[in-house]
Amino acid sequence: HDAALAAQVQHDLDHKTKPQGSLGRLESLALQLALIQRRRRPLLEAPQLVVFAADHGIAARGVSAFPAEVTRQMVANFLAGGAAVSVLARQHGIALTVVDCGVAHDFEPQPGLLRAKVPGAEHGTADASRGPAMSAAQRDEAITNGRRIVTGLPGNALLLGEMGIANTSAAALLMARLTGRPLADCVGRGTGLDDDGLARKLAVLQQTLDRHAGAVAPLDALAALGGLEIATMAGAVLQAAGEHRVIVVDGFITTAAVAVAAALAPAVLQRCVFSHCSAETGHERWLRHLGARSLLDLGLRLGEGSGAALAWPLLPAACRVLAEMASFESAGVSTRSD
Amino acid sequence: HDAALAAQVQHDLDHKTKPQGSLGRLESLALQLALIQRRRRPLLEAPQLVVFAADHGIAARGVSAFPAEVTRQMVANFLAGGAAVSVLARQHGIALTVVDCGVAHDFEPQPGLLRAKVPGAEHGTADASRGPAMSAAQRDEAITNGRRIVTGLPGNALLLGEMGIANTSAAALLMARLTGRPLADCVGRGTGLDDDGLARKLAVLQQTLDRHAGAVAPLDALAALGGLEIATMAGAVLQAAGEHRVIVVDGFITTAAVAVAAALAPAVLQRCVFSHCSAETGHERWLRHLGARSLLDLGLRLGEGSGAALAWPLLPAACRVLAEMASFESAGVSTRSD
Repeated sequence: HDAALAAQVQHDLDHKTKPQGSLGRLESLALQLALIQRRRRPLLEAPQLVVFAADHGIAARGVSAFPAEVTRQMVANFLAGGAAVSVLARQHGIALTVVDCGVAHDFEPQPGLLRAKVPGAEHGTADASRGPAMSAAQRDEAITNGRRIVTGLPGNALLLGEMGIANTSAAALLMARLTGRPLADCVGRGTGLDDDGLARKLAVLQQTLDRHAGAVAPLDALAALGGLEIATMAGAVLQAAGEHRVIVVDGFITTAAVAVAAALAPAVLQRCVFSHCSAETGHERWLRHLGARSLLDLGLRLGEGSGAALAWPLLPAACRVLAEMASFESAGVSTRSD
Repeated sequence: HDAALAAQVQHDLDHKTKPQGSLGRLESLALQLALIQRRRRPLLEAPQLVVFAADHGIAARGVSAFPAEVTRQMVANFLAGGAAVSVLARQHGIALTVVDCGVAHDFEPQPGLLRAKVPGAEHGTADASRGPAMSAAQRDEAITNGRRIVTGLPGNALLLGEMGIANTSAAALLMARLTGRPLADCVGRGTGLDDDGLARKLAVLQQTLDRHAGAVAPLDALAALGGLEIATMAGAVLQAAGEHRVIVVDGFITTAAVAVAAALAPAVLQRCVFSHCSAETGHERWLRHLGARSLLDLGLRLGEGSGAALAWPLLPAACRVLAEMASFESAGVSTRSD
């Protein structure tokens, strides 16, 4: 954090033709972007939305309203341009890449799809309710994959997206373990469980959490409780933060990846713009736990990166306020009379 | 309200490749836009942001932190492209027009500026604390001007903006009168009054409200309490609603115009998308009173139409969800397993 730069940018904001602070969160966003990019006039180039996709062994325990095959079907839908995130990324000129971090399918190579499967977990994690979701070596490989993927991306902004039936389970488990909150505060309906389904999910996850009581350190929790897409994304977040890229966080699952990364390197949070507060139980609380404030609160609970894409235009707007707005002096506008 | 169309659009939304309702407010927005446009696939064309500008006699009573000359200076800034709303409208390809509804200045004719001054109130309203802000004839002329302006606009979406030093005073007075709330619930700091300034504003406005105790009917209140830009905008809202245009409401002042229009013709609210909840005291409460929910809550308190422009991309996003997202059937994605 560069105090001199912060003061300079705040001065610039305060002298734009508007009452001080009257652009609210857009002003703090402009300041954050300037600090991430270490320049007085932040500029966003070639934004990249990456959907990290993987399957979850724990899906076999009936913790999701949708069958596991939906993960691979949705990957095809992302690539064909028909998913919500495809549509929204297209609207805003955001490049979309899907990463196969362990989907239970062998895709043909095709444009827009990166293969980042992990040896021994090519088709997803093991069932965390019966043993570790992945080995330490698999976890490390996934993190390394995430780092490598970001290194290869153009531009200076990474929007996080994800797909994986049952991945609200993995995220809820990580939330409970990393924050110490009761599991009931962390577990929600995901894609739309009914009350019975929610009770079943909670029971399975409590059993899972108890089984891995010793997995307390962030990396241990990540391996035990799982999410190949979460592990890969955590690596991506660490790399993007190190490269001073702007990281746009989506909903509950991407927050899990950020929370793991932040547990390892707290400064990553400075690089994160939290796009929205999801309707998924736990998300609001987790954001508060991380000291994060989201931009949007639209009752979204889709994931995919859809909230990140919806919030995206606010980021270039914040840059433009700094770059294009006139100052009181340059526009010949009178200042306060008191 | 066309129940058959609503059912059809809801069916379309429910069969897109996402859990039902998982796009939250974006889905209700898509439905609203379809109902406004009376078609299953709403499409937004040539959005027009109109900044209605005027001066206020009551400014002489020291109710604003900024001097009255800022109204005309900001009009010049809008036209030169240096104001927040200029920058944001440019970002989103929204056409920007400024309407002189009674600014205390005689502008040279120029591109982007419409003249809609009212005879006898060319340089603004009279001081409402000492008499009616405008006559009934002036009020009617302003409303007619607003109707005429909208008739001449291309496209099918009107974004409301405004400029006028002291216009939070006129809006607060109208709020108190139209909603029956105590004035203290309606009066805020505007462009940034300190505590003393706020107390002074409240005292002046209470005296003003008492003076016009008989001005109860919406049109009477509008003439007595004022705002040539508010009256013109109320006419614009009535006309736009009648033409089935989408009306994007900005902050506290534009809400005043919508509230007056809705008091005359309640159905206009169906055509209004409330872009954001302002940090100005009273706005949240007024939105609730109108049964309105805003899209954004970013602590904005600038006016100009800046919040309407910031929220704008959510509207085409909602249209694209209906037009471009695949259905479960077309994408070959499995539905819920329960």
